[in-house]
Amino acid sequence: MRKRKQGGPPLEDFVAGNGLLHRRALLGGGIVFAGALTAGVASTQAAAEQITEPQWSRQPGEVTPVLQTPSRFEKSVTRILSNPKGEARTQHARAPLHLLDGTITPNPLHFTILHSGIPDIDPAQHRFVIHGMVKQPLEYTVDALLRYPMVTRKHFVECGGNSAGMFSSEPIQATVQQLHGLVSCAEWTGVPLSTILDEAGIDPKATWMVAEGADSLKVARSVPLKKGYEDALIALYQNGERLMPGNGYPMRLLLPGYEGNMNTKFLRRIQITDQPGMTFYETRNYSPLLPSGKAYRFYFVNEVKSFITKPSFSMHMQGPGYYEISGIAYSGSGTITKVAVSADGGKSWGEAAVEGPASPKAFTRFRMPWRWDGQPVTITSRAWDDSGAVQPLRADFVAKRGQSKEPVKSPYAFPNNHYNSLTSWGIEASGEIKHVYV
Amino acid sequence: MRKRKQGGPPLEDFVAGNGLLHRRALLGGGIVFAGALTAGVASTQAAAEQITEPQWSRQPGEVTPVLQTPSRFEKSVTRILSNPKGEARTQHARAPLHLLDGTITPNPLHFTILHSGIPDIDPAQHRFVIHGMVKQPLEYTVDALLRYPMVTRKHFVECGGNSAGMFSSEPIQATVQQLHGLVSCAEWTGVPLSTILDEAGIDPKATWMVAEGADSLKVARSVPLKKGYEDALIALYQNGERLMPGNGYPMRLLLPGYEGNMNTKFLRRIQITDQPGMTFYETRNYSPLLPSGKAYRFYFVNEVKSFITKPSFSMHMQGPGYYEISGIAYSGSGTITKVAVSADGGKSWGEAAVEGPASPKAFTRFRMPWRWDGQPVTITSRAWDDSGAVQPLRADFVAKRGQSKEPVKSPYAFPNNHYNSLTSWGIEASGEIKHVYV
Repeated sequence: MRKRKQGGPPLEDFVAGNGLLHRRALLGGGIVFAGALTAGVASTQAAAEQITEPQWSRQPGEVTPVLQTPSRFEKSVTRILSNPKGEARTQHARAPLHLLDGTITPNPLHFTILHSGIPDIDPAQHRFVIHGMVKQPLEYTVDALLRYPMVTRKHFVECGGNSAGMFSSEPIQATVQQLHGLVSCAEWTGVPLSTILDEAGIDPKATWMVAEGADSLKVARSVPLKKGYEDALIALYQNGERLMPGNGYPMRLLLPGYEGNMNTKFLRRIQITDQPGMTFYETRNYSPLLPSGKAYRFYFVNEVKSFITKPSFSMHMQGPGYYEISGIAYSGSGTITKVAVSADGGKSWGEAAVEGPASPKAFTRFRMPWRWDGQPVTITSRAWDDSGAVQPLRADFVAKRGQSKEPVKSPYAFPNNHYNSLTSWGIEASGEIKHVYV
Repeated sequence: MRKRKQGGPPLEDFVAGNGLLHRRALLGGGIVFAGALTAGVASTQAAAEQITEPQWSRQPGEVTPVLQTPSRFEKSVTRILSNPKGEARTQHARAPLHLLDGTITPNPLHFTILHSGIPDIDPAQHRFVIHGMVKQPLEYTVDALLRYPMVTRKHFVECGGNSAGMFSSEPIQATVQQLHGLVSCAEWTGVPLSTILDEAGIDPKATWMVAEGADSLKVARSVPLKKGYEDALIALYQNGERLMPGNGYPMRLLLPGYEGNMNTKFLRRIQITDQPGMTFYETRNYSPLLPSGKAYRFYFVNEVKSFITKPSFSMHMQGPGYYEISGIAYSGSGTITKVAVSADGGKSWGEAAVEGPASPKAFTRFRMPWRWDGQPVTITSRAWDDSGAVQPLRADFVAKRGQSKEPVKSPYAFPNNHYNSLTSWGIEASGEIKHVYV
C-alpha cells in the first residue's frame, strides 16, 4: 500500500479504504508531506517579501481589556439554548464541539442543563452539610473547604440524555453540537469526597448517599457510597478558575464518568443512607428505556463513545486532497486506549493517532490523516477503553436498546438515554456532508 | 516524627520543620484526617436536616446565557492592566495566579503583552508566508492551515521579564499576580512547524528563522531553526477554542519553553536565514543584564521555577490548624520531577505532591499538607526538572545575576530579566503574610 512518487514525495501508507493514511504521517517520522499537502500556495521570493499591508498592520490595535473575549469573527462559536427566554421549564445549553479542537471545553462554552434556572449564590452564605449515618454531622463554609487537601483532574461531564436524537429510526440532519453538545471536558480542582466521608465517620452499614443542590428545585440524586470513596470530588475550580454559575458555583459534586445529573451542582448536603432516595430524577427521566418497554432502574455510567467533529455536518469539503479527520473519544469506565476510523462505512478500519497521555474519564482527541479522492465516502469512528469496553456498532446497539418507530424530527427531542454507538458522516462528491447511519 | 493520638486520629507524619506533613496525607492512603481538620463545624442531625433556606433556594434562578461568565462574587478575579487607557506604549495584562488553582489559565485571564495594541484581524484576509532559504516559498490562508495535521499540547508561555521585581534589593510587598503574573498555561492545538518547514524545503545551509507578526509594530524575533523542528507549533486553538485576540488570533508561533516575546503573535511570515535578524526585541529588552554591565546576546529559555500561590501576600491566615500549601512549578527545559517546600526559611525541606502525569514545559501544580501552629514561619518552594536543572537559591542567583542597588518600588518595573530563583512568604503570628527573601 506504500507509494512513493519520484522527484516529489509523498511517501504514503494507506491503512484502510478510501484514502485513510497511517497515523505515523502525523508524527513527522519519515513521512514527508511536501507536495502531499496542496493547501499551501506556491509563491515567488519577491511576492513573499511583498506582503500586502492590511488595515490592522497599518494602525495601532485595540486596548487590552481586563477579561479577554474571542475575536468578533468567532461570534458564531456559542452555545445553543433550548429555552432562551428562561420559561418555567428546563434550560439546555449545548457546547459547539464541532468548532472546537483539543480536549478542553472553555468555561464560557461548557454545556449546562438547569431545571429551575441558575441560582445566584453568595459563597459567604452558602453551607455544605454531611449528615445521616455518620458519627458526626458536619457543616462547612466555602472558605473552610478551600483549606482542605485538593486534587486536580481532567474529566468529562455528560448528560445521560446526550445524543438522544441518535435513537431516531432515520438520521437527523444536525451538527455535532445539536446531536452531541450535552458533553464537555474540563480540568476540575477540588477536595476528594473521601476526605469528608472520613472526617464525618461513616456508619459501616451505610451503602448510599443522597446529594442535594441549593437550587430552588433541590435537584437530588442517590449515589452508591463506593463511588464516593473511589474518585468523587467536591469541585471548586473549573479550568483553573472558580466554577461557572451554571456548572454549580460555588461547589458541585463531581462523579467522574457518571451521568451529568448525578454530579449535583450548588451542593448543599449529602445524606449518608442505607438505601437510595428514589428522587424525582431517579425515575425514567435519565434511565434507558428498553425495547421490551421496561427501563433500567439505575444506569449511571456514560459508556465508551466517540464521534468525528471534523469534517462533520454543516461543513463543506474544499475539494479533493489532504484532510485531517479529528474527533473526541471518552469513556466513563476508563481510559481510551484505541480509536479506529473508517472511510468506507465500516468495511475497513485504520487506527487513529490518540493524543497522549490519555487521561481516565476525559476527552481524548483522535486524529487520522486522510487523502480524499473526491468520491462519495462515509466516515465513522469507534473507540475502545482500558476496561475492555468497545463502542458498539449501530446494528448491535439498536438490537439491544431499540430505536424510535417513526423518525424523530428534532435533534433536541429525548426519545431515550445513554446512546454510545457510532456517528457517521456521508461525504458527497459535491463536498456536502450528511448525517448517515451505517 | 510520626504521631498517633489515642481515640481520634490524626496519624501525622512530619517531614520538615514547622509542621510540614508527608505528601501521602494528600493521597488518602492510610492517613485519616478525622479530627485533624478543624474547618468542618460539628452539627447535630436535627440541625443538619434543618438547613436555612437562603433566597436563591426559594425562587427560580437566572436565565442561561449563550456564553457563561463567572459569578458576580468573583468579579475581583481579573487581570491587572499596566496601561488601561491604551496610551501609545506597551500594554501588560497580568494573570491573577494567586486566585486560581489547577494548571490551566482560563482564556479570559491569560496574560498578554501588546506593544501596539490588539490588531482586529479578519481571518479570511490573513495570510502566512514562509520564504527565504527555501526551495519553494509558500503562502497559507487560515482555512488551508486548518486542514493540516495538528497536535494538542499543554504549555506555559512566560514573558522573559516576568518576576522582574524580584531583582529588587528589598522584597516588594506585592501579590503573586503583581510579581509573577506574566506567565500562563494553556492547552494549545496547532500544526507542527516541522510540517511547514518540510513542505517549503529548507536549504541545508540555513540555521535561523525570523518570525514576524501582523501587528502594526511588526514584532519580529529570530529563532534557531533547530527549535522549529523540535517542538514549535503554529497554534490555532487555545484551551479548545480559537486563539484569543490578545494571544495572537488567528495564529501564533508557539515555542514551548522560550520567552513569550519569541512566540510571535498574529504570525504573518517566517523568513529562513543563515543568521539572526538582530531585530528590536533582540536588544537588551529581554536579555538578562549581568553584574559586570554586560548582557547576554540571546537568552531564550525560561528556566526551572516555582512559587507558592496559596497562602501568599494579600491573604490572611484563619488561625492555627491544617492548611494546604499550593503552588505552580514549570520549566522551559523539561518536565518537573520534584518540588520541595520549606516552612522554616529553607533550613529543612519536605517533598511536595506533584499532580501527575506532569507535562513537559507546562504548569505543574504542587501541594504540601501543613499544620500551622500559629507561630511566625517562612514558607518557600524549590523545583527540579528532568534535564537535571534545579531552581537556584537566592544567594547563588544574586551572586551570578545581581540585584538592584536600591530597592525597587514598583512590582511593574523591569530592572532585569529571567528571574527564576525562590519566592518566600513570611507568615506572622497575626496571620498577616509578607513578601520576604531567604
